Amino acid sequence: MTPETLARLKAAAGSNGFSEDPTEIAPHLEEWRSKYKGRSALLLKPVTTAQVSAILAICNETSTAIVPQGGNTGLVGAQIPFDGEVVLSLARMNKTRSIDKAAHTLTVEAGVVLAKVQKAADDAGLYFPLSLAAEGSATIGGNLSTNAGGVAVLRYGMARDLVLGLEVVLADGRVLDLLRTLRKDNTGYDLKQLFIGAEGTLGVITAASLKLFPKPAQLATALVAVASPDAAVKLLAEMQEHAGGLISAFEIMPHIGIELVTAHIPGARDPLSRPSPWYVLVEAAGAAQFPLTSIFEAALAQSAHVTDAVVASSGTQREALWALRESMSEAQKREGASIKHDVSIPVSTIPVFLEKATAAVLKILPGARAVSFGHIGDGNIHFNFSVPRGGDPDAFLSRWEEVQRAVHDLVHEFHGSISAEHGIGVQKRDQLALYKSAAELDVMRALKRTLDPRNILNPGKVIAV
Amino acid sequence: MTPETLARLKAAAGSNGFSEDPTEIAPHLEEWRSKYKGRSALLLKPVTTAQVSAILAICNETSTAIVPQGGNTGLVGAQIPFDGEVVLSLARMNKTRSIDKAAHTLTVEAGVVLAKVQKAADDAGLYFPLSLAAEGSATIGGNLSTNAGGVAVLRYGMARDLVLGLEVVLADGRVLDLLRTLRKDNTGYDLKQLFIGAEGTLGVITAASLKLFPKPAQLATALVAVASPDAAVKLLAEMQEHAGGLISAFEIMPHIGIELVTAHIPGARDPLSRPSPWYVLVEAAGAAQFPLTSIFEAALAQSAHVTDAVVASSGTQREALWALRESMSEAQKREGASIKHDVSIPVSTIPVFLEKATAAVLKILPGARAVSFGHIGDGNIHFNFSVPRGGDPDAFLSRWEEVQRAVHDLVHEFHGSISAEHGIGVQKRDQLALYKSAAELDVMRALKRTLDPRNILNPGKVIAV
Repeated sequence: MTPETLARLKAAAGSNGFSEDPTEIAPHLEEWRSKYKGRSALLLKPVTTAQVSAILAICNETSTAIVPQGGNTGLVGAQIPFDGEVVLSLARMNKTRSIDKAAHTLTVEAGVVLAKVQKAADDAGLYFPLSLAAEGSATIGGNLSTNAGGVAVLRYGMARDLVLGLEVVLADGRVLDLLRTLRKDNTGYDLKQLFIGAEGTLGVITAASLKLFPKPAQLATALVAVASPDAAVKLLAEMQEHAGGLISAFEIMPHIGIELVTAHIPGARDPLSRPSPWYVLVEAAGAAQFPLTSIFEAALAQSAHVTDAVVASSGTQREALWALRESMSEAQKREGASIKHDVSIPVSTIPVFLEKATAAVLKILPGARAVSFGHIGDGNIHFNFSVPRGGDPDAFLSRWEEVQRAVHDLVHEFHGSISAEHGIGVQKRDQLALYKSAAELDVMRALKRTLDPRNILNPGKVIAV
Repeated sequence: MTPETLARLKAAAGSNGFSEDPTEIAPHLEEWRSKYKGRSALLLKPVTTAQVSAILAICNETSTAIVPQGGNTGLVGAQIPFDGEVVLSLARMNKTRSIDKAAHTLTVEAGVVLAKVQKAADDAGLYFPLSLAAEGSATIGGNLSTNAGGVAVLRYGMARDLVLGLEVVLADGRVLDLLRTLRKDNTGYDLKQLFIGAEGTLGVITAASLKLFPKPAQLATALVAVASPDAAVKLLAEMQEHAGGLISAFEIMPHIGIELVTAHIPGARDPLSRPSPWYVLVEAAGAAQFPLTSIFEAALAQSAHVTDAVVASSGTQREALWALRESMSEAQKREGASIKHDVSIPVSTIPVFLEKATAAVLKILPGARAVSFGHIGDGNIHFNFSVPRGGDPDAFLSRWEEVQRAVHDLVHEFHGSISAEHGIGVQKRDQLALYKSAAELDVMRALKRTLDPRNILNPGKVIAV
């Protein structure tokens, strides 16, 4: 970057809108697991869309690469400047622009933290369903740029499904105002879809209009013991029918997962009287007058697929059940090295997939411990393996690529996805070529060239051009 | 078209796959209201994706324009060959490819009629919620190409929201296989979104994987008298809260609408004891054990916005209530000339919009009778006017453009949409320039040029390049 470009970018970002201080920049270069680490000499921190626009116009004119960043919680390296790019932090664009209680819509800037979006909805007596582990630091702009998933997808869909409108700054600095709050709008191509899940490679999201929902007056939550993933899939269909589509979460956990959580997480305990090979955490949300708890009790009692179950009778008990599920990543981390996959498979074939894929991994890594858990209700399994008890973590981790290839090959064979909710970033970029058709890759590249002809927006992420 | 190109296209479509017979072609040139009429000397009727691929490859190579067509029920002229283009009918691509009951997915070819899609879901004990007046002839390919709306959008979303995967033939004949059945798939740009609602201008949809839902075991339906649209909007929020988001339809009708229906449609009657300025038809769908009817009765009894109400106590009574709403277009047609708009407005501002827009129209056409009805729950109003009683229909209709401009200007002022569910086609193409930003139009044109560089796919529709 020339001194002149540097000066122009700093001026465009405003007097408190930039930093060249390595100490301030450092946290923006590395993600929390220290898996990816980049480098950059300039952090820009705009507070207005006009500043983002001016910054991108300069970047485009001078072919200066830039990496947009929200809460820096992404898991695939999309938010890291690997090659000295300018970091564009949206964190200071954190205003709520408007809320419409009657229309159930909320318009916020990209840098608003997800937990604060949830709270703004809650304060208005409404509900924003996107919920995920990183919600205390992830920003809504990042959530939309990665099309985040989380625990409520089964009922409410992915982040994409929660968006009514976007404000986007294009690569050349033009502002695309698509900030509509309409449920129905068929006036030409739905351009906002291009930027959702594009990981900042096609434009920079600066604000979003979101869908809100009636706040569920009542939750019913159960932990259910089942013999197998097949029993879990069958139970899913039964519960969906009994609860009339109100199932908001349906999570599977293996016995070893519960074992790890109770071993590593203080206060965690298995509330069932004897161990089960598999567990399902199921939850429904609905109006106060719906007899959800008795529907759950009746459905579980009459199901041929349930060997034991407990229905939460208080908020505290509900939280204890959820803590089992939510502590699983942390417990697996404390147990030692692990190899992870974020895949999805058509729900009905998950049982067969788990069997075949586990066998394929054990062939490469005998003794590895399968800890497959996750959102089986929407087909998304965190297909993870922990190092064999007493095994060498480095030797174990050295087989990551080989294991991943075997797993992803099977995912492809099962018409699944090698990235269900985490995205592509740099981590899986080169794998797209293995599993996507030439036509699909061509269209992706054509879109990238059309919307970012100078390749300044998060270059090298998602797709190489 | 050269004789050689003609011969190649006929060969590509197969021996029963084309027609040059004007009698057979005629019904493909004109839509049912006779509003648009085109011309074409060649109808192609492929039965396989490979045939569509071969046809488009030839069209692209020879710069031959082609108009894809499903059930020919579109309302904005998108499916009409105005300039002698080849007609590509997808109607013979009408196979169900697969259904997965456990995963709640259905994969069908583009030419399957919507009612048959609904039936295939129903036969499997499941539910496909897209429902609209033309469902007996509209095809799913056309529904997706126009991102159809209908009466269940409030609960289930637009056609776009019901799609998991697509098979698309690109302008150059390459087949883009995006036929996935996954709920979660974050592997790069979500290309299917480009083709949904693009009205056949960016590619030809040949098959789709659709989301199915648990079949509602129970419906509660009420016809409610309210004093004003404002009361209707307030009732919507109340009902959503009481029924926990299970409201599947919330339709508004004015007194004159009920009057026209009872006057023109045999057997129709107003079930309430005295006339009301406005009526709401509200329906919820849910599991068998939910006390929906008593929730409705209690909610309506305690609402300050309800002046009278009847809750359907049988399927027959429910159908009679729906007939009032569904006959409204037909009744208005029988009443004489009308000027129509398909607009959407943020729900909370609909009452003010209706007041202002009605005043604006009456200023141009004193005595015109406002028949504003529709899906107020999702913000979509069919803002229609009937000719004054005894007025001259031609004089009335001659003011269409002027009236439309006044209405659409107000829609724009209210941050609404000038085409909520019908699309753009040719009817509203030139109006996009009035209401979309230059940046948005530029990106639309750039996409069109990228995906259809020779402008062979439905040229002149949606956007001019």
